[in-house]
Amino acid sequence: MNIPSKLIEDAVTEISRLPGIGKKTALRLALHLLKQNPAHAEALALSITTMRNEVQYCQTCHNISDGPICSICSNPKRDGSIICVVEDIQDVLAIENTNQFQGKYHILGGVISPLQGIGPEELHIESLVERVSKKNSDEPVKEIILALSATMEGDTTSFYLGKRLKEHNVKVSTIARGIPVGGELEYTDEVTLGRSIMTRVNYSTE
Amino acid sequence: MNIPSKLIEDAVTEISRLPGIGKKTALRLALHLLKQNPAHAEALALSITTMRNEVQYCQTCHNISDGPICSICSNPKRDGSIICVVEDIQDVLAIENTNQFQGKYHILGGVISPLQGIGPEELHIESLVERVSKKNSDEPVKEIILALSATMEGDTTSFYLGKRLKEHNVKVSTIARGIPVGGELEYTDEVTLGRSIMTRVNYSTE
Repeated sequence: MNIPSKLIEDAVTEISRLPGIGKKTALRLALHLLKQNPAHAEALALSITTMRNEVQYCQTCHNISDGPICSICSNPKRDGSIICVVEDIQDVLAIENTNQFQGKYHILGGVISPLQGIGPEELHIESLVERVSKKNSDEPVKEIILALSATMEGDTTSFYLGKRLKEHNVKVSTIARGIPVGGELEYTDEVTLGRSIMTRVNYSTE
Repeated sequence: MNIPSKLIEDAVTEISRLPGIGKKTALRLALHLLKQNPAHAEALALSITTMRNEVQYCQTCHNISDGPICSICSNPKRDGSIICVVEDIQDVLAIENTNQFQGKYHILGGVISPLQGIGPEELHIESLVERVSKKNSDEPVKEIILALSATMEGDTTSFYLGKRLKEHNVKVSTIARGIPVGGELEYTDEVTLGRSIMTRVNYSTE
């Protein structure tokens, strides 16, 4: 593609570095910005730099935050005795959207993946163990919910965390794996179906 | 979606104003930028503002340009006696990619669309007529190729331009409409097929 303006070509190159955006889409976005009010492009650019330079990570749970402690960790209504361990920030948003969890979070920043060279020391595991081991704090941790992906890497990480947390006398649970709500048995893969039978729960009509 | 950082929320709002990008994609892009080197976000923001503030439009053909005259209009190898009239900048890039056209362009900036309140005076039609009427210039215009979309608006615009250019003693042609290369007759819609029969061209094996 031969863009007759170096300025636009530079912008297209930068925009197309974003994941899932190719040269054609980048050009469409650049030309869209050209048609808009200059204030729009200005606001977009400013919000990107401000975000990148000023966003902080919560010192407790490693979530994104505007201050040293995030809005979930500093919320007195949230139950600090239950910590849900997730892979990254999107997972927190996904769980928050369910409105089913009132505890706090801990973000690992990834999962153990020997193939990608990610070992336990690359993740926020020590700070999790530290949170759990603080027995004389106001809110001692009673339960850790492992909410990691149902992949080999996620399972490996769950297994590692389970071992690490064993000595700390804390209940460790994992989110249920089974057939999705609305899913039909017939079309569920055998591994999922097998697991859903193995990890069956008591059914009560009361 | 309840993003725990105002800074990221602002960035997501701005990014999701771009066409074809929703809140979820915008969040994914914002979190991607957070994981990258700060220089990356800086370069992206700078390229957007620089582009928006410094890009110019060619005074002759209204194409995007880094100076008052674009690289196509100022290229002495291009044939200024043939002008291809297109709707917008992307169309110029599309035709340039074919390597089939060595003339110059004229960008209307849209097509006549009464429903959207776009009349002939909103488009760069006067400057086109002016280019055509300059008979004593170095390179008098001999042919105008109308390369507008095969839609009702495009056809209306072509019709209007045909009428306006009639008195200027210039050949006016339009790009061929017919079945696409690689297209099968069976699956071509009847309007296209009908047109391709009406506007059939001489077939020569020489």
